[in-house]
Amino acid sequence: MIEDVHRGRVRPSRMTSEFDTDTAVVSKGADVFAATITDRWSTPVGPNGGYLLATATRALGEVSPMPHPFAVTGHFLRPAKPGDAEVRTELVKTGRRHAVAQARLVQGEKELMVVVATFADLTNMNGREFVLGEPPPPTPPEDAADPVAVLEAEAVPPILRRVDFRSAEVPGFAVGKPSGRPEFMSWMRFADGRAADPLSLVFFADAMPPPVFEIGEFMSSTVEMTVHVRAVPAEGWLAMRVRTRYVIGGYHEEDAELWDSSGKLVAQSRQLALLGS
Amino acid sequence: MIEDVHRGRVRPSRMTSEFDTDTAVVSKGADVFAATITDRWSTPVGPNGGYLLATATRALGEVSPMPHPFAVTGHFLRPAKPGDAEVRTELVKTGRRHAVAQARLVQGEKELMVVVATFADLTNMNGREFVLGEPPPPTPPEDAADPVAVLEAEAVPPILRRVDFRSAEVPGFAVGKPSGRPEFMSWMRFADGRAADPLSLVFFADAMPPPVFEIGEFMSSTVEMTVHVRAVPAEGWLAMRVRTRYVIGGYHEEDAELWDSSGKLVAQSRQLALLGS
Repeated sequence: MIEDVHRGRVRPSRMTSEFDTDTAVVSKGADVFAATITDRWSTPVGPNGGYLLATATRALGEVSPMPHPFAVTGHFLRPAKPGDAEVRTELVKTGRRHAVAQARLVQGEKELMVVVATFADLTNMNGREFVLGEPPPPTPPEDAADPVAVLEAEAVPPILRRVDFRSAEVPGFAVGKPSGRPEFMSWMRFADGRAADPLSLVFFADAMPPPVFEIGEFMSSTVEMTVHVRAVPAEGWLAMRVRTRYVIGGYHEEDAELWDSSGKLVAQSRQLALLGS
Repeated sequence: MIEDVHRGRVRPSRMTSEFDTDTAVVSKGADVFAATITDRWSTPVGPNGGYLLATATRALGEVSPMPHPFAVTGHFLRPAKPGDAEVRTELVKTGRRHAVAQARLVQGEKELMVVVATFADLTNMNGREFVLGEPPPPTPPEDAADPVAVLEAEAVPPILRRVDFRSAEVPGFAVGKPSGRPEFMSWMRFADGRAADPLSLVFFADAMPPPVFEIGEFMSSTVEMTVHVRAVPAEGWLAMRVRTRYVIGGYHEEDAELWDSSGKLVAQSRQLALLGS
């Protein structure tokens, strides 16, 4: 494992980071990797989908000749449980600009997720820049709220202890008053100080509570999630906007934008999810 | 083939529709399907990505016990050429609500695309409705422009002959004056009168010229595209909004919404693409 980390793909700020420890994969040969799904990234209904997707992506990074996850898709089959898991990978194609690999995340004999990831070298993209979206303030204001601090201690799921959140105001659902507007804007960073990197953006894109909490829906199960990592994030806070605009037949999308502390868009994600579990 | 069509999955309005003919798949046994990529859905750089994704999805529909494509993802490996192709499918999981299947689209020994699709029954989704987005006018106004009619006949690629387009105004690029705003809104329907259905939305989501045409970029190659089919479309025109907000390092996203003539959101899609070919 130490060797893998030193290879520079993961670039943790500290060797002991929780994220690096809990997404670690160990080769079992033949492109199969052992992983351990911990309970440290769980929501009230189980391990977080972005954490699972990041773990599978980390294994894919081991077989990809390109360094960075660029477009990562997971189709979710079954919920995970804390415990041993396996990532069965296949490198599908290596090209000049992109490498594409796929994986199945498996526990016991149950397949939990089908993952396809296109990798690239984000430091070697020199084409045109044309940005219309307005960045959020790069860092939280002095008087920003800690939306987790207002929750009863026993109501804080493990995932919310792994990440520091700041928001301009306490979200309505956290004080029992959903706003009716399914959107959030929050600053985030790993609680243990690990720097954000392309891999961790796959996790951060799913780290905030679902915006449907603000319309009184407190369960959401991901069907499909795709993250586009658009740039290597600078050090410091990430700012994330996430919103839902269409709940149809009980399903909803979640669109997220993640910005780094230099005001650069570093990821977009969209997921399709089902209300309830 | 006739049997497949009658099974009701595809529901063409006419047996001879161009879309049904050109996405047809024939079982070769063992979950492998023969397809023929025609040149009738080509852009100036080759067969359209949405057409390829719809063809692969049609083969996946043959192995899925659920009737409708719901979340369809393609990671694009290589451009296709008109000619014979194969769709190698695998049904990954069948559940109560969803079925997940994956495919490789192959020409010769070259893999062109990795596809993962979650299927569902769109007529059996009875959960909550909460819609914030405003529908466009459901049908084109009397004085709507035909943006294809203003092009020189030899500049009209085959794909633009398969679809009727109407727009409130002629897009700038079509008259040599890109607007600088990478977005389009257009009404669309199959030129031969075939009704839209869930499968065809996978195609329609990629049928319009890339919005980056309006910033003077006339080539775009899809890296990854995901379509969420949110409802079965009503008969009549589809209205589509598509826009690009972030061109970073030469890559851009395209976000599309498709609405039916009853004012219902029927699909969302996002793709990540590279300027140039």
